Amino acid sequence: MAPEYVQSLRFRLPPLLFFLQTGFIVLFIFYVDIEQNVQTKQHAFNNYYSVFQDVHVMVILGFGFLATFLVRYSFSGAGFTLLVAAMAVQWAVILNGVESMYHRGKIWINMRSLVVAEMCTASSLIAIGAVLGKTNPVQLLLIALLEISGFVLNGWLLQTFLKVQFLNTIMLLHIFGAFFGLMLSWVLYRPGSEQQHEKEKIDRKTGLFSVMGTLFLWMFWPSFNSVLVEVDHVDRGRSLRVVYSTYLALAVSAVTAAGFSVLTSPQGKLNLFHIQRCTLAGGVAIGVAMSAVHLPWVAMAIGFAAALISTLGSRYIKPLMLFAFECHDTCGVLSVHGLPGILGWMVQLLLQIADSDDLTTAIRFAVFHICTLLITLSLSMSLGLITGSLLKCNFWRPPQNKKCFDDQAFWEFQHLAGKR
Amino acid sequence: MAPEYVQSLRFRLPPLLFFLQTGFIVLFIFYVDIEQNVQTKQHAFNNYYSVFQDVHVMVILGFGFLATFLVRYSFSGAGFTLLVAAMAVQWAVILNGVESMYHRGKIWINMRSLVVAEMCTASSLIAIGAVLGKTNPVQLLLIALLEISGFVLNGWLLQTFLKVQFLNTIMLLHIFGAFFGLMLSWVLYRPGSEQQHEKEKIDRKTGLFSVMGTLFLWMFWPSFNSVLVEVDHVDRGRSLRVVYSTYLALAVSAVTAAGFSVLTSPQGKLNLFHIQRCTLAGGVAIGVAMSAVHLPWVAMAIGFAAALISTLGSRYIKPLMLFAFECHDTCGVLSVHGLPGILGWMVQLLLQIADSDDLTTAIRFAVFHICTLLITLSLSMSLGLITGSLLKCNFWRPPQNKKCFDDQAFWEFQHLAGKR
Amino acid sequence: MAPEYVQSLRFRLPPLLFFLQTGFIVLFIFYVDIEQNVQTKQHAFNNYYSVFQDVHVMVILGFGFLATFLVRYSFSGAGFTLLVAAMAVQWAVILNGVESMYHRGKIWINMRSLVVAEMCTASSLIAIGAVLGKTNPVQLLLIALLEISGFVLNGWLLQTFLKVQFLNTIMLLHIFGAFFGLMLSWVLYRPGSEQQHEKEKIDRKTGLFSVMGTLFLWMFWPSFNSVLVEVDHVDRGRSLRVVYSTYLALAVSAVTAAGFSVLTSPQGKLNLFHIQRCTLAGGVAIGVAMSAVHLPWVAMAIGFAAALISTLGSRYIKPLMLFAFECHDTCGVLSVHGLPGILGWMVQLLLQIADSDDLTTAIRFAVFHICTLLITLSLSMSLGLITGSLLKCNFWRPPQNKKCFDDQAFWEFQHLAGKR
Repeated sequence: MAPEYVQSLRFRLPPLLFFLQTGFIVLFIFYVDIEQNVQTKQHAFNNYYSVFQDVHVMVILGFGFLATFLVRYSFSGAGFTLLVAAMAVQWAVILNGVESMYHRGKIWINMRSLVVAEMCTASSLIAIGAVLGKTNPVQLLLIALLEISGFVLNGWLLQTFLKVQFLNTIMLLHIFGAFFGLMLSWVLYRPGSEQQHEKEKIDRKTGLFSVMGTLFLWMFWPSFNSVLVEVDHVDRGRSLRVVYSTYLALAVSAVTAAGFSVLTSPQGKLNLFHIQRCTLAGGVAIGVAMSAVHLPWVAMAIGFAAALISTLGSRYIKPLMLFAFECHDTCGVLSVHGLPGILGWMVQLLLQIADSDDLTTAIRFAVFHICTLLITLSLSMSLGLITGSLLKCNFWRPPQNKKCFDDQAFWEFQHLAGKR
Repeated sequence: MAPEYVQSLRFRLPPLLFFLQTGFIVLFIFYVDIEQNVQTKQHAFNNYYSVFQDVHVMVILGFGFLATFLVRYSFSGAGFTLLVAAMAVQWAVILNGVESMYHRGKIWINMRSLVVAEMCTASSLIAIGAVLGKTNPVQLLLIALLEISGFVLNGWLLQTFLKVQFLNTIMLLHIFGAFFGLMLSWVLYRPGSEQQHEKEKIDRKTGLFSVMGTLFLWMFWPSFNSVLVEVDHVDRGRSLRVVYSTYLALAVSAVTAAGFSVLTSPQGKLNLFHIQRCTLAGGVAIGVAMSAVHLPWVAMAIGFAAALISTLGSRYIKPLMLFAFECHDTCGVLSVHGLPGILGWMVQLLLQIADSDDLTTAIRFAVFHICTLLITLSLSMSLGLITGSLLKCNFWRPPQNKKCFDDQAFWEFQHLAGKR
Repeated sequence: MAPEYVQSLRFRLPPLLFFLQTGFIVLFIFYVDIEQNVQTKQHAFNNYYSVFQDVHVMVILGFGFLATFLVRYSFSGAGFTLLVAAMAVQWAVILNGVESMYHRGKIWINMRSLVVAEMCTASSLIAIGAVLGKTNPVQLLLIALLEISGFVLNGWLLQTFLKVQFLNTIMLLHIFGAFFGLMLSWVLYRPGSEQQHEKEKIDRKTGLFSVMGTLFLWMFWPSFNSVLVEVDHVDRGRSLRVVYSTYLALAVSAVTAAGFSVLTSPQGKLNLFHIQRCTLAGGVAIGVAMSAVHLPWVAMAIGFAAALISTLGSRYIKPLMLFAFECHDTCGVLSVHGLPGILGWMVQLLLQIADSDDLTTAIRFAVFHICTLLITLSLSMSLGLITGSLLKCNFWRPPQNKKCFDDQAFWEFQHLAGKR
């Protein structure tokens, strides 16, 4: 059996990579150019190259090392994230530029287009988190490209038909990615996964690598939330408010996640998984709700609630999803991105209604806001189902059950000292 | 015995966390707001969000991973640092804003208040370094909050009664933290600690994680020293001079620490502990002395002397403190922050006297400068003693001797592959 | 035998370090000062402190952790990189300032001089990569200082006699470092190295540390290529074009390296070494060619070709160099920096010729461009030979064959838990 799978990567991964990469280069030849005339507004943003770098670090290093926690799957976690991100960014630049191509004849590369592309990539990396270790890189690449297509389509639908602001559509990336990934993991469910896979474990060192990824995400999240506020609204004060809100929400989130982790533990101990992931829930929730958050204590309360939901979700809903719904979610994206995202959406709804002057505006906003969520959820889940069905067939040669969560299926190991 | 300690975290940590966090949120509701009117001077600083991020990285990632060096205590090293920092930052924002609340009715959150809060947090993390591995997270949290209270009080005393510049009081964070921690470790001394604890060791991988923390501190230290010069004095040239001085002092420090490490080694080899910590001594010393350093070679000479003191301190004074004074200093904060800090203070004194025009000014300055140090030392040491006495009692359930330096007392390990 | 080598570091490393460091401080006393009058142009650049930090992170953390991949040599990889860089930066500041000292009486320290010094340091770290693990720190230091001297001389020759732009000479750092290192490794060849050394291996964790170094290089490479464009040409648009080009070239490079790694693998699997290094080839090639690259797809094509050459080089040329030319290249600098650098040079030649208006200009440019490469290659290779011959003698006490690639020759290990 083994040689068959060894061959599978050779006859599937390189052709796919070269086909896609050549295709992208050809598209770039005809349609893409670098924006030369740096206007005044754009110029202001150019100073924010360092904020772009923060987002870049989050996507490549943060997500990459967050995915290294499995004891025998850490090369794949970091390596596949890099591979998928390098491909996804190019695809996202093209897709996001289609409208500009239609109006201005060209897709223009500038700081803003790269930032948006990185955010779409983050969305696809969230989706991939749900099926990590149970898929091969060919499948991961296809998932990422389809997820980004769906996410960009979703944003276009919301902007065109519901007049949702661009900033609000892009921040749905957590919800879209999480539910897309959840449906994927449901379709790709392997019988027998109820029992913990013998390799689905962390050790002291991979746990620490993963904590490093967490910390980069945690530290730079204020940049992630504020960067597009900065670019699109030339309002320094507003983007700083987002920075402070995110900072406070994350601080409270870290404290709360630790508290509930100990409280719900049978032994009264901390759980590393919660510290790695639930500490980030505040950043997700505040990102979705940010346009309505004006006071620091509101941001802190959101951070508290998000970490609460996320920790309880990881402790109780994750096993439930596995046993009741046959949904094996490797990185717990439902609890970390899905539920806190929906919490943020709900807080935004409540705050906007409370801020409204009259009832009509409030109802109008509520209807639009609820439609936004429904469209996002139905689109992400249906596309997740479709993608899952496409990738389920044996043509893609997914790893055998016993080769799941194992680098040895994909990486040359002859120079390695020992197996640990 | 074991179950008793298991319960101890559950009935102590979550209540403390929730009590403090709720209290902070309530204080934020009534007293804290985000600064909206971004003035011209403040605006200039807004461009320095990236410098703030450097400081943030140093505090969270730098200190966090520097603390991962113990072979069985690395989750705690990184995790507790995050937890303590997330809490301490909020407390520092409140305490530092008390005066502004008195005058302007509100505590305002802006870039400057966050930077100052991060620096107070750094001070508390230094203090914690001395007792790392011998305390539980409840104790660490209380230490941090009390240390920050003392440090802010110290700054207020110096500014009010001795008219010391704010910038000079904040840079005493190294001295304050180190001597606070030293007194703590003296009070919390456990009989039997003269012999090296079997778990107080590093291995190849935790050593490397710790080096990573070192490198982040080493690389971003110029930002740490210059950020407040930038904000408080709208003098670009002065803040760049601090950047260059710190950069050079650190470079010389790294070279010198390596040299003395080999020279004092019985086997003529490098000691990883020295490379991890004594390379940073130059940054500490130049930070304290920076307002008087104008020439690059002076910065380099300070870097040389600081690394010399720090390496010799780690090699000879650390064991002496343990055997003669029963003071077990896990991270060697005396040699890394305490002594280089005092060196910097002394250099500042000498340089200021040499720069003085007449004798009266020189004597006046010397008296004030010596009082500054004496007040800082006596306040930090007495508060360290008090804090230590409060935390010594069994009510806080410190880890048993055999559970010291061990993650297993605090972290769920059932998903871990093997014990290493 | 062992005690002899133990002594060797004590009687050679500290004296060398103190002699050099004292010498540098003395030179700084007389000749170096901090630039005080921050002019308008310089002022613009001051905003790019954050870009300088990116370069600093690449040199210290990126190169440092990239060198940790050997299972028993990771302390040395990171530690010696720090030591060498701390020394080399000071030397580079002095050497690069000699001309300014001649004209203006002083060597001035400013952002630009530090950036240039970091780039010279990067060049020396590339050279060191070829002999890593087979030399002691004394040899590494001397290599670095001689390499930097040669590189600065090369730049001066090219600027003075061929009127090559400063920016173009500095970007030859990859070619100069790689061929210098290659000649070194040829001269320092040890008989018996054809067989893989038992310690020349990676394990899961050191591999991951090394990937971390890779990611920092990969993420911040756009800063590395664009920083001097920013400073020397006050042309925001041009420096942003370099950022985008480098970004795209690296993305394509990562995808292509993965593709060819699988394609050329007998088992159809990914090779970690390729992912760690060949993904960076695009950044090298575009750095050399950048002044002639105007379109995004050209940058992508360069990234593709560079990763192709680099992966094939690592797979086929590296063993060939070892068996046919007795050249053991630990980090594969020929394939990662040398060949992609020459590719970039060639692309620049072709693009410039294609852009030329008339034949005379084209021929004139071609002659100058070819001379540039020939001078660089001959100077780097001859200096590499000379340096190698100087360091070959037993006076420097290189590690014995069986102590190669082993931290235990240089680091105190008594506190280490176990040998792994």
